[in-house]
Parts: sequence; structure tokens; C-alpha cells
Amino acid sequence: MTLKIGVIGTGAIGADHTRRITNTLTGAEVIALTDVNQEQAEKVKQSLGLNATVYKDGHELIEKSGVDAVLVTSWGGTHEEYVLAAIKAGKYVFCEKPLATTAQGCQNIVDAEMAAGKRLVQVGFMRPYDSGYKMLKEAIDSGAIGEPLMIHAAHRNPSVPEMYITPMAIHDTLIHELDVFRWLLDDEYVSAQVVFPRKSKYAHDKVADPQIVMLETKKGTRIDVEVFVNCQYGYDIQCSVVGEEGVVNLPEPQALSMRKNANLGQSILTDWKDRFIESYDVELQDFVNGVQAGKLTGPSSWNGLAAAVSGDACVKAQESGLIEPINLPDRPEFYR
Amino acid sequence: MTLKIGVIGTGAIGADHTRRITNTLTGAEVIALTDVNQEQAEKVKQSLGLNATVYKDGHELIEKSGVDAVLVTSWGGTHEEYVLAAIKAGKYVFCEKPLATTAQGCQNIVDAEMAAGKRLVQVGFMRPYDSGYKMLKEAIDSGAIGEPLMIHAAHRNPSVPEMYITPMAIHDTLIHELDVFRWLLDDEYVSAQVVFPRKSKYAHDKVADPQIVMLETKKGTRIDVEVFVNCQYGYDIQCSVVGEEGVVNLPEPQALSMRKNANLGQSILTDWKDRFIESYDVELQDFVNGVQAGKLTGPSSWNGLAAAVSGDACVKAQESGLIEPINLPDRPEFYR
Amino acid sequence: MTLKIGVIGTGAIGADHTRRITNTLTGAEVIALTDVNQEQAEKVKQSLGLNATVYKDGHELIEKSGVDAVLVTSWGGTHEEYVLAAIKAGKYVFCEKPLATTAQGCQNIVDAEMAAGKRLVQVGFMRPYDSGYKMLKEAIDSGAIGEPLMIHAAHRNPSVPEMYITPMAIHDTLIHELDVFRWLLDDEYVSAQVVFPRKSKYAHDKVADPQIVMLETKKGTRIDVEVFVNCQYGYDIQCSVVGEEGVVNLPEPQALSMRKNANLGQSILTDWKDRFIESYDVELQDFVNGVQAGKLTGPSSWNGLAAAVSGDACVKAQESGLIEPINLPDRPEFYR
Amino acid sequence: MTLKIGVIGTGAIGADHTRRITNTLTGAEVIALTDVNQEQAEKVKQSLGLNATVYKDGHELIEKSGVDAVLVTSWGGTHEEYVLAAIKAGKYVFCEKPLATTAQGCQNIVDAEMAAGKRLVQVGFMRPYDSGYKMLKEAIDSGAIGEPLMIHAAHRNPSVPEMYITPMAIHDTLIHELDVFRWLLDDEYVSAQVVFPRKSKYAHDKVADPQIVMLETKKGTRIDVEVFVNCQYGYDIQCSVVGEEGVVNLPEPQALSMRKNANLGQSILTDWKDRFIESYDVELQDFVNGVQAGKLTGPSSWNGLAAAVSGDACVKAQESGLIEPINLPDRPEFYR
Repeated sequence: MTLKIGVIGTGAIGADHTRRITNTLTGAEVIALTDVNQEQAEKVKQSLGLNATVYKDGHELIEKSGVDAVLVTSWGGTHEEYVLAAIKAGKYVFCEKPLATTAQGCQNIVDAEMAAGKRLVQVGFMRPYDSGYKMLKEAIDSGAIGEPLMIHAAHRNPSVPEMYITPMAIHDTLIHELDVFRWLLDDEYVSAQVVFPRKSKYAHDKVADPQIVMLETKKGTRIDVEVFVNCQYGYDIQCSVVGEEGVVNLPEPQALSMRKNANLGQSILTDWKDRFIESYDVELQDFVNGVQAGKLTGPSSWNGLAAAVSGDACVKAQESGLIEPINLPDRPEFYR
Repeated sequence: MTLKIGVIGTGAIGADHTRRITNTLTGAEVIALTDVNQEQAEKVKQSLGLNATVYKDGHELIEKSGVDAVLVTSWGGTHEEYVLAAIKAGKYVFCEKPLATTAQGCQNIVDAEMAAGKRLVQVGFMRPYDSGYKMLKEAIDSGAIGEPLMIHAAHRNPSVPEMYITPMAIHDTLIHELDVFRWLLDDEYVSAQVVFPRKSKYAHDKVADPQIVMLETKKGTRIDVEVFVNCQYGYDIQCSVVGEEGVVNLPEPQALSMRKNANLGQSILTDWKDRFIESYDVELQDFVNGVQAGKLTGPSSWNGLAAAVSGDACVKAQESGLIEPINLPDRPEFYR
Repeated sequence: MTLKIGVIGTGAIGADHTRRITNTLTGAEVIALTDVNQEQAEKVKQSLGLNATVYKDGHELIEKSGVDAVLVTSWGGTHEEYVLAAIKAGKYVFCEKPLATTAQGCQNIVDAEMAAGKRLVQVGFMRPYDSGYKMLKEAIDSGAIGEPLMIHAAHRNPSVPEMYITPMAIHDTLIHELDVFRWLLDDEYVSAQVVFPRKSKYAHDKVADPQIVMLETKKGTRIDVEVFVNCQYGYDIQCSVVGEEGVVNLPEPQALSMRKNANLGQSILTDWKDRFIESYDVELQDFVNGVQAGKLTGPSSWNGLAAAVSGDACVKAQESGLIEPINLPDRPEFYR
Repeated sequence: MTLKIGVIGTGAIGADHTRRITNTLTGAEVIALTDVNQEQAEKVKQSLGLNATVYKDGHELIEKSGVDAVLVTSWGGTHEEYVLAAIKAGKYVFCEKPLATTAQGCQNIVDAEMAAGKRLVQVGFMRPYDSGYKMLKEAIDSGAIGEPLMIHAAHRNPSVPEMYITPMAIHDTLIHELDVFRWLLDDEYVSAQVVFPRKSKYAHDKVADPQIVMLETKKGTRIDVEVFVNCQYGYDIQCSVVGEEGVVNLPEPQALSMRKNANLGQSILTDWKDRFIESYDVELQDFVNGVQAGKLTGPSSWNGLAAAVSGDACVKAQESGLIEPINLPDRPEFYR
């Protein structure tokens, strides 16, 4: 049975996921679309030749009986509302990050989902679907390096536009690390500290860049993440896990080594969209398969909540200069 | 419209392709199966829950009007017959290597396909679909290293069984290189020479191992390929292209680097099936898309013929110890 | 003219430097030796066939008119006294680290040397003589990565004995980093913080291991150094400098890459003595050449003082858990 | 006792070795010099402030009783004559390559040295003194890769001047490989073949470039060496040894890895003089130490003869296009 999907929000990411479901994935099709800009939704429908209906708004779409599952790819401020509506309608929902714009919003979703009695929500954190992170996770879980004690990481972008301000280093950039480290370590954060190195001359006035975020987990693992969004040279994700008996590193993306002009080199990506491009396919296919099997296993509402709570603490630490506690409630059995 | 595929031969590779079409690829489904062992065909049908008919033989399957395209994954000795039948029926056909067991058999297919007036056949050479080889090809075609002058390559397996004898180093192992170098260089071979280094103590009596095959192309590019099928340490495919201005190397498969036990290392694969596992998906999806679009662009019958003719010359060179000519007719416009 | 050197302390490092001067370096010879254990000094003299006199103590040796320069390789607690005596005698002196066991002791030497009116003292920090660090320094100074903003570093040992306690991670291990980063960055530290990750099960009771030391410099560069002295897998020195336009990494020591047993790997050193073995030669030859030329350019008393002051702050930070200021006086023109 | 050395030929390499002995090495000094251009010899003497006598010719220098050992760094055509004279005078002699310009000349030296009853001659092959090749040799000798079966190698220069013609690819370029492979494998060559790939557009009229030289040894090991002297991108020496159980590669020269401008790269050398710069020091110090100890262990006259005989066969193979035998007499016990 082909899964019938409705897409709420057909901007860049919504259109991309629609194309993905239509042309690349198996087992699903998009039969409903909506967008604040209805013309945009029509345009996506036409360009992909979809046999789909364009609805007036997300609520109407969610309620349609032919829609089996929902993709929420609208503006972040509307996520909470649509996810709650989908849960209420008993429908599976894939929601792009952030799950909600506040920790309370995420908590509301967690509460509603638990009340519904089964996992209905997957959040769009794609790094656990990246082949390199999967290798890291397997190596850690295999015990090959003993217990993990430290993570040294970096998240670097070539540059950011004027609208990118200091707290976005947490909410828009670090958020992926906040999710993926919890998954890698199977652990929760207890505190955050942020320090600001000498500012790059390439950084705009309103962004402190680079930053170093230091996290501590319940088990005592220490994580330092360099966030450097004007590093000029490329889009570069580094992650090194130091265990009691060894160290493993996230693999570099596959690249050709070339000897030329007195250089032995390989290309570094410059566009973030290329870095996890395959992960988006795997992530969404996993959602489709999970819905088909009646059991979601990808990033949950709890992941959304944990990212929101720890992100808030990091922003507070940016402002205070202090070591800020991260107070996440105990993870319910429901989310294990 | 979903492409309806019939599969002739449901052994290891046939079953695997059937699973691939059913669970991983998009746009196609298997609706017909056959095998010399009908129980085996039934078993594949059951295990994948296919809505398919099991036919008594390949000819019956090919002739069924509901079958849009055929996969030939039967025993090599039957390929020619089924491919010719598919062409006669005007149906697209994907044939695993070898296209035919003799150069004449390949020529028969080429002749039949040209008489049919359009490309109907794709041969199962999957390396051009490997992400690493694609990077190599792009680098060469971009002019980044200037004109290619030499290729240094190696094809290494950990070990081979007793039944693997000297000429199989060409027909079963080197055949992939014979295809992929032509594609990388957009060139044809003119001669082959084979030399036999000191034999490994791990090689069985009936196989000279390792071997070094040296090829020359029309444009004068020189290729040396080490074929070493009892190398013990892993399954390892190396390819370095030396151009007038630089050198590019086939990337190693993605692997985690680990520091442990006084070693900074990364795993080498040991099973050939893992090396090109993603390429099989891409290859077969490309066939499906090509059929849907009415235009095949993957490895053609001509590739099958070229591999057979050059393979025969290599085997002759194994026996004679001489530089043997490779006489391939000029490539018809049809196959450009 | 061959430089006549007297060696105070003929234990492991003293004997090694004596061998070095005798067999490897050019332009110097050891003509005087002393040790608290006179038999040990005699033994070194005999084993190397030296034409040298064994003196009863360091002061007698320093005063001998035939001795042009002095090596202080005795027990750390005696360094200050012998270095001051050498300065008083107007003789050049190479002193192994620590220059003195207290910051005040280092200051006393700085004061005496400035009073003497010329640089007479070189401290045994050998990393600036390492070919890899020299490449790093050249890359930074060339402007290739723009202004340095961060350093991420690690100092890992396989294991340490029972007598190694928490503050030794600073005084015996980190001290090399404390010196080399100042040199790399041409900058001084202003604060230190130390955090303690989850402790390795391989660490003894009296040592917190690993530790992460975070330093800030006057220019605002942020440095994080992992000190992990029971890492099990090897002796491993990592240093990555992140600049406004790029990142440079300390090269790995030269090693053979080997493909074997499904691993593509290279050896990691396990003994710290092998890591900087060539640097000791270069360092001591530079001292000999500097004395011959009447101008020392290697690590100075000021370096010894700076390492002592910043080391003390790091130990204080270990104990307090706070960000501790590092108050080093302005560097006198004399030491630029 | 300081070894007193006389230098015959004070051109580039002679002047360089004289500087090396004077400023870098230990245990030797240059006390005699001569050159066809006496002014040049005087100039070297002055610039290094040597306490040395300039003689009118090599024979006069060799006969001087104060001269303990001789360096022959004159024009290649004169090597044989001076080496024979030194042997006759019972003096140790270090001779730059070639030992003689003909195989017969090398044989004359071998005969004279054997008649003299002890090894007096070291030939200036420096690669066995390179740290990377030493690692390769140790790995092979340790049995880590099992018996060596193949070597794949490359010798690449950025470009060569107009005077460099086809046979020089053997006599001036490949000659180092011809020596070092015999040493690595402890084996002798039995045949050579040369093939010419498509010529680079950067190669001058009188040089076929690149070339691939294929050698076979007594034990059956097969070696392929790419010689490419207009490769544009750098001076690059590659050597990969394939054994029964694994593969080892000559390490790349130490280099900084840098992330910049979307490239993760490291520098490749462009000047051959930088590649083995440290080996020259080690090589000549080994000669000095060997003379002092009365026992030479470096590359011998036999190495010079073997290189000449195999080089001649390679040139013959260039011309004939055939597999040419390499007929070296059995190695006398004297040279084991």
C-alpha cells in the first residue's frame, strides 16, 4: 500500500521533500499540498506532475480522510500547531526542525503524543541517518574505544548573511550537534558554557563568531564544539570521540585526492546542502517505512524537546558567561 | 506508470535485484519470475510477497504482454539466447555480465539490436555508477589533469576458491576494469600483455596469482592492472590516473579513522559485495528510468562486446607471453 | 674553536645530552662532568671515552676556567642555584625544564640575567625545534590562515605510574604546550580554566584523567588542550590552529602506511622519547651555535618564567574550578 | 681522531659536501681541495674559511700523506680514474654516482677493490639513508607483508631542460630506483622492458616522456616504475611494495595539512634537492663513521656495477622495444 502524504508548507524544504517522495523514495506519494502562498503550492504540484489536491490551509489538509501522514515544512512558528493537530487526528507527522519554537511548545507536543498512546511524530534531525555518523555510533556502541569520555567537534560554514545573529549560532547551527551527540552518547546534558574567542574580521557586527560551546553530560562526558560560521574555507563538520581506549573520527565526505600544482589535496564542500544530501533521502524513507510498519524509530518529540531545552541553556550561557545548568526532565519510558 | 519487470533467473543476483526493485527502487515492480529451478522462483516470490506469476521458462516470460522489460540474471551460458529473444520481442532488457560467453555471441546481440533500430540492452557493469569512479570521470573530463597518459590500477581479493583458475582472473575479475577504463578514457584498447610475478604461497595450484595486465589504447594511454586474488588483507580496488598536469586517485570507500593500539587506521573491506553495493541500486534505477524515458544511457551491448574481445586477447596474452593485439571493429555511430 | 662544555647531572637526560654532544653534534665537546652520584658521572665518562674531568659538585665545575658553557641536567630542585651561579660566572648555560621549581625562582634568574646585560640562558623546551611545529609556525606567520583565533590540542600518553598526580598534568605534561603555544602565537596568556571529564577507568586514584585546560590569550585567542595521560593507545600530540581563513594541523610523525588484515593503518608512537628525538639534536646544536656566535635565540629565561606563572594558574584552576587569571608582567624589551 | 678529507671536484655537489663536512657532520674536516677550475676550489676554501690546501689535480691530492680519505665529486667521466687511484693508494673513497660511465669501468673498480682485499669505496646512492625507505626496508625485512611479489613505483619531476634526452631517463633518473630496489628486495634483476605511453605535450622533442620501465628479479618479483620528468605538478617519488600478506607504501615527505579555499591539502615538493636533503647528511656521516671504524657498509662498488649493467639493459630495451636480459655476474662473497 502506497502511503498518502500531505505536505504543509511548500517552500524550499517542502518542495524538496515533495520531489524526494515523488522521484526518489519508494512506498509513498504526495496527494495533498498547502502553503500560505497557494500559488506556490500549485506550482510545486504542476512542476512535479502530481496527482494532488491543494488545500486552503494545514488544518483542512490534516483532516482529509485520504491523507495518511503529514509533513510539516511550514514556517517554524506554525510547527507546534500543526503537529498538535496531526496528533489529535491520529495521524503520523514528520516535522522539520524546530519541533516548536519554545521548550514549552515541545513539551506540549510530548504530552499530547504520550496521551495519544503511541509515537506519531518524527523530527527532521537527519544526522543520525548520515553514513559517517552511523559508523561513529557503531564504533562507540561496539565498545571499540571503551567508554566515551570527550567529544571534540566543529561546525563551520563559509559565511552567513547579515540577518544571522549570535543566538542563531545555537538555534540554527548548533541544534544539529545538540541532537546528534545525545544520540551518539545515549546520554543527556547537564550544563553548558560558551566562550567567545577573538572575533573573525569576516563576521558581521551582530554575530559573535567563532564561539566555543562546552557541554557536560550526566555520565560526565565533556563536549567542546567550535561554531564558526564565517570560516571562509568551506562547510566542514568535524567530530572526534575520545574513549578510554581509543579515538574515532567522523569520516570526511568522500572526495577525490588530486596531485596538482604542488598540492596533494581533496575538495572540501562549501554548501551545507551537499553535506547531508543523502541523509535526507534515508531519513524520509525511514519515516515512510516506519509509518508503514506502524512503528517510528527515528528522532522523536523527545529529541525535539531535549534540543529546545539545551539550546535555551546555551543561549543563556552566551549571555551570562557562566556555566548554565540544563534541566531536562527524566526521559519517559515511552521515548526509550 | 510503474514499469512491469520480468526476471529470468532467481539465483543470488536475480533474487537480489528483485528485492532491490521491490523494496528500494522507485517506478518499477516485478510481476514475472522464472528459474530453471521453479521452486526457487516461487520462494523468491513468497519471501518478498510479490504479486507476480512464475513462468516455466524465460521465453514464455519474455512473450507475456504484461511484461515491459526483462532482467536476465540466469546462468551465463543462457544470456545470449534470452537477450536475443527480448530484442526480438522489442523489449528492454538488463543483462548481467557477461552479455554472452563469446565475442561472437556479443556481436550477434549488437547486430540484432542495431537491426532493431534502437538501444534495448543494458549490461550489468556497475562501476560507472560508483560515486568514486564518477568523481574520477568528472575530473578527467573537466581537463583538471590534462590529457590522461597512464592508469595504474589494482584489483585485489582476499582469496579465491579452488575452482578459480588462471583465465578467470580475466573473465571474472579484470572484466570490470576492462569496461570501466574504456569509459573513463573514452578510448579503445589496441593491445594486451600479461606478466606473472613470483607466485603467492597462498595461491592454489591452478591459478597464477598475482598477474599484471598491461593494456595500450588507441590514443596511446598505457594501463597496468595488478590482479591479485589471494592478497589476504582485503578486497581492494585501486585506480590512479596520471595526466599531463596531475594525478587523480579513486577514493577509498568511506571509513572511520580510529586511533587504537598504537595504530591510526581505517577498515578495508573484505567482501566484494560491500564495495559496490550502492552502485547496484543506482545502476538498476538508471535502467528503470531509461526505459521509462525511452532512452538507455548505461553500459550497452557494445560495452559487452568490447569487454569480450579484449578479455579474449588478455587470455591469449596469458598463454603466449606476447603482446597480443586487440582488434575491435570501429564503434558504430549507433553506440555513441 | 670547539666549545668546552661542563655537564651538571649525569642521569638519563644528562648522559643522553653528553652522548649527543660527543657523537652527533658538531663544534662542542664535554670536558667536565659532575653528579650527586660521582660514580655515575665516572661511568658516563668511561662509556663515551671522554677526555673529561669529574668534579665534586656543580659549583666547582662552573668555576673552572676551561669550561665555556654549562648544561644543567640535575634534579629540578637544584636548577635555580646552578643557573644563577653560571650567570654570575658569566657563562652560557643550557638548563633542562623546569628553569626553577617556582615562579619566583624563574624571576630571580630573569633578574640576574638582565643584570648581567646579555642572554646567557637557554631553557630545554625542544618543541620549537620540531620540524612539524616549525611548519605550523611558518604557516601562521606567513598569513596563510589569517589571524589565529583558536587552537585545539591534545597531549596523550599511554599511561603514567602511580606517583603521577593531578597537578603533574600541568607541571610535567602541559608545560610543553604552555611554552609552544606562546611561541606559535607570539602572545601571552591571560586566564586558565580546567574541567574534568568522566574519569578513565585506567587512571590511578590520585590523578584526575583526562583533563581539559582552556586558555585565553591577550589577543583573545582561545586554546583548549586535552591532557590524557592514560589514553592507552599511544603517545599522541595533536595541534590544530584555526585562523580567520583556514586551519592548519601539526603533521603526524612520519610513518609507513600499511594495508594488512583488513586495515589501512600507520603506527602511532608509544614512547614520548621517540616523538621529539630529532628536536633534541637540533635544540642543543642551536645552543652550541648560539654560544659560538655570542647570541642565543632559543627558549629564554622569560619562557621559563612564563611557563611557571601560567602553570601555577592552571594548577590553581584545577583546584578552584574557576577561571583563574594569569598575571605575567610585560615582557621586557631584553627578551624580545 | 678527526678524519682528514680531500675533495676532488668543487662544483655544486662537491662544494655542498664540503660545507656539509665542515658545518654539519662530526668527526671529519676537509684539508685538501682540487678542481679543473682552481679558482673555484679557492673560492670554496675561502667561503667556508677552510684550513685546507688547493692542489693542482686529483692525483696529487690523493697521494698527499695527510689525506685520509677522498671524495670524488668531479665530472662523471673522471670518476673511474680517481677511484682507481685512491684504491691504489690504499685510501677510502666516496664517489658520487656514476661510479664509472661504463659497466666495464665499474668492473675495473670492483676488480681493483677486491684485489686490494678490503672495501674502500662507497658510492653516492643516498636513498637507503632516507628515513622513509628505511621504514620500507624494515617492514619488508620484518616479514610484516610476507614475501614481496611486486613493486609499483614512480619517479616524477616537474620538468627537464632541453638537453635531457630519452636515455637520461635511465642513467640520470631511474638509476636511483635501480639501486634502491635491489637493496629493498635483496635481489638482482634478470630482465628489463620499457614501454612508452602517449607523450606529454610538455615534453621536448628529444625525450620520450613518460616511460614505464618493467623489471624482473631473480626471485620473480616484478617491478614497474613510471618515469615522468615533465609531470608539471611536483617532484614526487612513489613506491608501493606488494607482498603475500600486505602492502606498504613509501611515506610522503612530512607536510602540514591545511584547510583553505575549499581544499584540504598538503604541499608537494617541487625541487628534487629538497626531497633527500637529510639523506645526504646521513650518507656522508655514515661514510665518515665507516672509515673511522675501518669498515664501510654503505652502497658499494658492486652497487655501482649493478646499476651500470642494469641501466645499460634498460637503455637497450628503450631502443629495441623487447624484453632485454640483465646479465650481472654472481655477487662475490666480498660484497655481501
